[in-house]
Amino acid sequence: MMDEVGAIRSAIGADFVFLEFINKAGETMYRLIRQEGNARRGVFETVHGTIQTPAFMNVATSAAIKGGISAFDLEELHCQIMLSNTYHLHVRPGEQIVKKLGGLCGFDGWTHPTLTDSGGFQVFSLATLRTIREEGVTFHSHVDGRVIFMGPEESMRIQSALGSTIAMAFDECVENPAPYEYAKASAARTTRWLRRCKEEMARLNALPDTVNPHQLLFGINQGATYDDLRIQHMKDIAALDLDGYAIGGLAVGEPTETMYHVIEQVEPFMPKDKIRYLMGVGTPSNILESVRRGIDLFDCVMPSRNARHGHVFTHEGIRNLNNAKYQDDPLPIEPGCGCPACRHHSRAYIRHLLKADEMLGMRLAVMHNLYFYNTLMEQIRDALDEGRFGAFCEENASVMSRRI
Amino acid sequence: MMDEVGAIRSAIGADFVFLEFINKAGETMYRLIRQEGNARRGVFETVHGTIQTPAFMNVATSAAIKGGISAFDLEELHCQIMLSNTYHLHVRPGEQIVKKLGGLCGFDGWTHPTLTDSGGFQVFSLATLRTIREEGVTFHSHVDGRVIFMGPEESMRIQSALGSTIAMAFDECVENPAPYEYAKASAARTTRWLRRCKEEMARLNALPDTVNPHQLLFGINQGATYDDLRIQHMKDIAALDLDGYAIGGLAVGEPTETMYHVIEQVEPFMPKDKIRYLMGVGTPSNILESVRRGIDLFDCVMPSRNARHGHVFTHEGIRNLNNAKYQDDPLPIEPGCGCPACRHHSRAYIRHLLKADEMLGMRLAVMHNLYFYNTLMEQIRDALDEGRFGAFCEENASVMSRRI
Repeated sequence: MMDEVGAIRSAIGADFVFLEFINKAGETMYRLIRQEGNARRGVFETVHGTIQTPAFMNVATSAAIKGGISAFDLEELHCQIMLSNTYHLHVRPGEQIVKKLGGLCGFDGWTHPTLTDSGGFQVFSLATLRTIREEGVTFHSHVDGRVIFMGPEESMRIQSALGSTIAMAFDECVENPAPYEYAKASAARTTRWLRRCKEEMARLNALPDTVNPHQLLFGINQGATYDDLRIQHMKDIAALDLDGYAIGGLAVGEPTETMYHVIEQVEPFMPKDKIRYLMGVGTPSNILESVRRGIDLFDCVMPSRNARHGHVFTHEGIRNLNNAKYQDDPLPIEPGCGCPACRHHSRAYIRHLLKADEMLGMRLAVMHNLYFYNTLMEQIRDALDEGRFGAFCEENASVMSRRI
Repeated sequence: MMDEVGAIRSAIGADFVFLEFINKAGETMYRLIRQEGNARRGVFETVHGTIQTPAFMNVATSAAIKGGISAFDLEELHCQIMLSNTYHLHVRPGEQIVKKLGGLCGFDGWTHPTLTDSGGFQVFSLATLRTIREEGVTFHSHVDGRVIFMGPEESMRIQSALGSTIAMAFDECVENPAPYEYAKASAARTTRWLRRCKEEMARLNALPDTVNPHQLLFGINQGATYDDLRIQHMKDIAALDLDGYAIGGLAVGEPTETMYHVIEQVEPFMPKDKIRYLMGVGTPSNILESVRRGIDLFDCVMPSRNARHGHVFTHEGIRNLNNAKYQDDPLPIEPGCGCPACRHHSRAYIRHLLKADEMLGMRLAVMHNLYFYNTLMEQIRDALDEGRFGAFCEENASVMSRRI
């Protein structure tokens, strides 16, 4: 497949190629419809709807976006795909309750695509007293302290009960910097765990009472910041022919330039005919730079978390609504913005709400930031469609990240 | 005016009368359009729109309903009139900022009627180290401890800057039980303060830069739980011919039956051609019983506060969504309810959100309770329109207050 892309690109002698890949099941799942450099404009078809890529997933940890945003609000915010956390939903309310309510789409009302993470990241970042063995991880719940065991099979079973569109493989996310030998052993175990995930997912999808028998499985590339480990791991998991591939273990302590370097190292070994997801990233600038390096899918708590602290994104830079200069400012967060906060409310009002600790302040700021991220992705897609993504990056990457 | 009503009622020999009163300025402000016993079906015309009465005011303390509800959400919740708190807005963000943004309707986006309280109740319940003198009250802000002086003129100036539809007179709200002599002296001072409020409001409404030159002023009946004090005070303030009359100082510690008794004592002395407001009340049952006793207007934090703790109102009684029995319950809070929470979400989902401390849980529960209160008032008005209010009370007063 790699060679095919290379051949087409050489043949037309241009950065722009029109490609369509067919997955092995005969269904068109990910279609790469245009490319500019390494940046990809694609379409990802799922049983719950179509995702235009590059896309940003809106993080609904416990099956709700923090800031009081419902599934029905999300449609107004131009969201295409929601991400929920397996660990949080396993701990509370428990996946069997979600399953009984019809899976996540019946539970939270979001009938478009949802991705669930594997729980791995939270097991390694939130839970306490964990023990990692070949079978999986034993840890204590951060909510009530009870002992939980989670391995590849458990993660798949939970995600199957949640009925998400996309399940993520159970992996170990190593903190950066990590010792080489540890990172190597961990990546090898993550590969072994991935095989078990694939097998278990196939079994679960074939069960008669499965919520979503078309549940997809994405593998996760690990290997800390070591080029050779990253590349070997990517080759190993690419051979398993999964529905999509993520790069994990980045944005966990390493410098931004290291992150871009790892993407550049790994990208040539990621299947071209599969969607690619950079986990937990990032700022608008990080997203632009990563799209430029060949990434299709992103998720990050930044837009909602920053909003709750009054930090809002605009095309001119980041505003801190807590600043006194906004106390009587009648303008919306960003003039011309079509989000529900900017259509109706002033900076002065939202600032007041945040200062008075009124939930509405957080809700309005979160709505703005999610709308900003989701429409930024639309602008990126438009730029790719029109062959001007490079220029779009130049204009926006640094401007959007400055504080104003 | 009293005699006129009595004469008409005697003449038609029925509980139902069709009346229309014209206020002294020649404008029709409050129109009593139907009466069943003492219960009144009316229409109150204001510069910001018409209020069908009996009505419930939705409490937006700091110019926002707690639970992340915006002015635009309120329209969907069948709200007619919002109430904001003068004390809170004076302390933060300050009335001059609200004025600069165009008054409350420019600030919070609610362009329908708004009532502001006088600040008196909060001065006496929230602020610390207060000193009451004839001029007014000196107290410490509950936010930053700074010393604030508020008297009748200050309250009117703040409310004028806020530009509400209805301003409330600055009064002293005495806790029940109160010593007779204290309650008597306090009520007399409240009358003297009311005269100063009326004078200052007239001056403010005539200023060239007044936000709402048609701002109305309601007087507040006080006198603790002493019939003679209550009646004398009501007579005294009725003589001042204000735009409306409130009964204050109830639901502050006395038994419910005492509250009903005070209403019954005072009601005959309340002008029939003016709207009547029972401050800070109450449960659905309290509202039904008070409408039955001749009250037109209510406000209470109960629907939003209880909702935030998972207690939701239905026509069958009050549900506690925290109960384990709702953990996998796919039904909406109240089947058939048209609120945004019931149209889209299950008890199981909202319970999960409340347990997981997700703002969305509070938002959905608050939306339900406010919708319940606002549509309860619609049902009361329909019952009055159709002459079956008595039967409506019988059916609902006790049922709605039971825990299920």
